[in-house]
Amino acid sequence: MSNESLVVVCVSGGMDSALTAALAVRDHRVAFLHGNYGQRTESKELACFHALADHYAAESRLVVDFSDLRQIGGSSLTDARVPVREGEPVEGVVPTSYVPFRNAHILAAAVSWGEVLGAVAVYVGAVWEDSSGYPDCRPEFYRAFEEAARLGTRPETSLRIVTPLIDLSKAEIVRRGLRLGVPLEKTWSCYQAEDRACGACESCRLRLRGFREAGSTDPLPYRAPTPA
Amino acid sequence: MSNESLVVVCVSGGMDSALTAALAVRDHRVAFLHGNYGQRTESKELACFHALADHYAAESRLVVDFSDLRQIGGSSLTDARVPVREGEPVEGVVPTSYVPFRNAHILAAAVSWGEVLGAVAVYVGAVWEDSSGYPDCRPEFYRAFEEAARLGTRPETSLRIVTPLIDLSKAEIVRRGLRLGVPLEKTWSCYQAEDRACGACESCRLRLRGFREAGSTDPLPYRAPTPA
Repeated sequence: MSNESLVVVCVSGGMDSALTAALAVRDHRVAFLHGNYGQRTESKELACFHALADHYAAESRLVVDFSDLRQIGGSSLTDARVPVREGEPVEGVVPTSYVPFRNAHILAAAVSWGEVLGAVAVYVGAVWEDSSGYPDCRPEFYRAFEEAARLGTRPETSLRIVTPLIDLSKAEIVRRGLRLGVPLEKTWSCYQAEDRACGACESCRLRLRGFREAGSTDPLPYRAPTPA
Repeated sequence: MSNESLVVVCVSGGMDSALTAALAVRDHRVAFLHGNYGQRTESKELACFHALADHYAAESRLVVDFSDLRQIGGSSLTDARVPVREGEPVEGVVPTSYVPFRNAHILAAAVSWGEVLGAVAVYVGAVWEDSSGYPDCRPEFYRAFEEAARLGTRPETSLRIVTPLIDLSKAEIVRRGLRLGVPLEKTWSCYQAEDRACGACESCRLRLRGFREAGSTDPLPYRAPTPA
């Protein structure tokens, strides 16, 4: 693929999607896609998305509202009655923060948009090895979705689904992010707070452990003292 | 599957999805899903959806607004600047009425909802053999999406994607619909008009040919005299 080719980058506003964007812009023109779905920290994530789109000079941006995920609920991120779990993820357990089949919605939007734009790939910052264990972050899910996209679009449309972070640890993500000058201060990971990160939810724990193992310090403000 | 099991039925409000609903209710409890995406005949289709949900006593209904498909455009159904083509579909040509990867959005919503409801299958009235040639109506697309859904949801979630009409002709759909007492007067197929069907767009042509070949008369009102 030449650096003239366009790719769609799914950018949640977290650290993983920011690094994915940094990798995509090395070889491609980029269009940035963001999804709102009624998650607790929606406005903070959207602000990070726009800051990253400015930083990486995205030539187009699309913000999608997934109204059905708001309506369907079934997750601690979208249903205020289900508390956000604190502590590190538990091996083999799908956490309550799993939003049912959410990533398929984001991919469907990215493929539709990519088809109209004439893009050659969709970049997604999914992480599987060192993650919360969401089933829609599995490498096999992305392979199957890529096949569905190949079959379900025009014959001349050919969109690869690229997941460059899928096997990385959070520490490697921090290290590579620092090396590539990713503005990590413009990303957000916390599931429950928008002013200062809570430091306690699964997502904060994974992020903080990543910085710790990378021998670095997270530039974000935290509510409580950073847990040891 | 017992008749106690629940299935999600994707109901656009057309003849095909009405027959699909009739087939689903023979063996299952049903939850009806409908998608708005800025198509020209959105309000008429939604009214048919609710009439069919009443008729088949759907135990829940979900209406989803696909805001990105509105924004993305790229189809004569969602972009007022692209005219709706008239006449029968042309073999091997993807028509301008193709909405990029639309059915993936509907399936993603159905799988998310089905996972939360504990459903065992998603029914979709896609037709391939006697259709407009939309790539997201291919049988292989549904098989690939079923695999993506299996991999991208909780281990205990197991949703089959069922497409009972995929190989039927429009005439067979009319015949089976009449035999099963499907209220065809409560369905809508026209792509461009909401008061009286135009009789000229691809979708009207397919529908009218189906009735003609089935030796029956369409109960819907048409603008022009029914073309021979």
